[in-house]
Amino acid sequence: MHCNFLLCFCSSSACICPLPHGVETSFSRLLCHILSATSSLDLCVFSFSNMDLSRAVLLLHKKAVTIRVLSDKDYSAITGSQIGILRKAGICVRCDVDSAYMHHKFAVVDGRLLITGSLNWTLTAVQSNLENILITEEAELVQPFIKEFHRLWVLNDPARFYKNLISDDEH
Amino acid sequence: MHCNFLLCFCSSSACICPLPHGVETSFSRLLCHILSATSSLDLCVFSFSNMDLSRAVLLLHKKAVTIRVLSDKDYSAITGSQIGILRKAGICVRCDVDSAYMHHKFAVVDGRLLITGSLNWTLTAVQSNLENILITEEAELVQPFIKEFHRLWVLNDPARFYKNLISDDEH
Repeated sequence: MHCNFLLCFCSSSACICPLPHGVETSFSRLLCHILSATSSLDLCVFSFSNMDLSRAVLLLHKKAVTIRVLSDKDYSAITGSQIGILRKAGICVRCDVDSAYMHHKFAVVDGRLLITGSLNWTLTAVQSNLENILITEEAELVQPFIKEFHRLWVLNDPARFYKNLISDDEH
Repeated sequence: MHCNFLLCFCSSSACICPLPHGVETSFSRLLCHILSATSSLDLCVFSFSNMDLSRAVLLLHKKAVTIRVLSDKDYSAITGSQIGILRKAGICVRCDVDSAYMHHKFAVVDGRLLITGSLNWTLTAVQSNLENILITEEAELVQPFIKEFHRLWVLNDPARFYKNLISDDEH
């Protein structure tokens, strides 16, 4: 795979950005795909504690890419979770409260590119586990993930909970 | 999706097979794809405790489909794991001992159809979690998984460990 963006953005040894530099790896290719976002990044991930991936998301946020993050309620609160840091930076985050686990690990870049697989966005997943990530622009595969993201995003809108609370108070 | 096999095989109320019957669900469609195997099933799954999926694999084994199962060493030994049952039935199972976790959750049917996603083959994953499974015959997506399965299968050949032990004794 040809990785123009990451090489262009980070290949200089003088580069002060906080992302890994130099050799192309599976991880640098993943970062490259994430950082290729120009308009939106929809991220639906069970566990998010990897600081390099967090920095990539924060960089996109600074570049005015619209970011939406859906995560699992329990795992968003564990030690090392980046979810709070993303929230503090002003990124819109929603947590699933209904299911046993919100176990997805996928992202959709610019409503076009699907990144999905077994990999949680953690350091152990990236450095130690055997994992897979599948990246595709095939609409037949991408569209169901976009649709599912939208469904979960609406379902976990905090306004719905407040509305229910007010409604409960009224009765 | 048209599910000839499962409907044909299990739609009768008099059917005595142990698989779920009747209504088509995501799970019945998954079973349908697994049961469509006619020559081989390569399964690479972190955690395997779902009895319906175990029964499907055992049915294929009885039909002389060549089955290879790769799993995580630690998780293959937990309570409810089906790995021992598959082994006892004569199915060839290998466990990854090197990585932190063998975290894959994919299957390749007849060297042609890839089934991959976030879903471990457990009851909680099927019944309670939010999960995804992506199914494709796109060679560009299927081939890397076939290659990775082959690599891990060879890497975790028990004969390699015995060879190393003998070699260690000799020196």
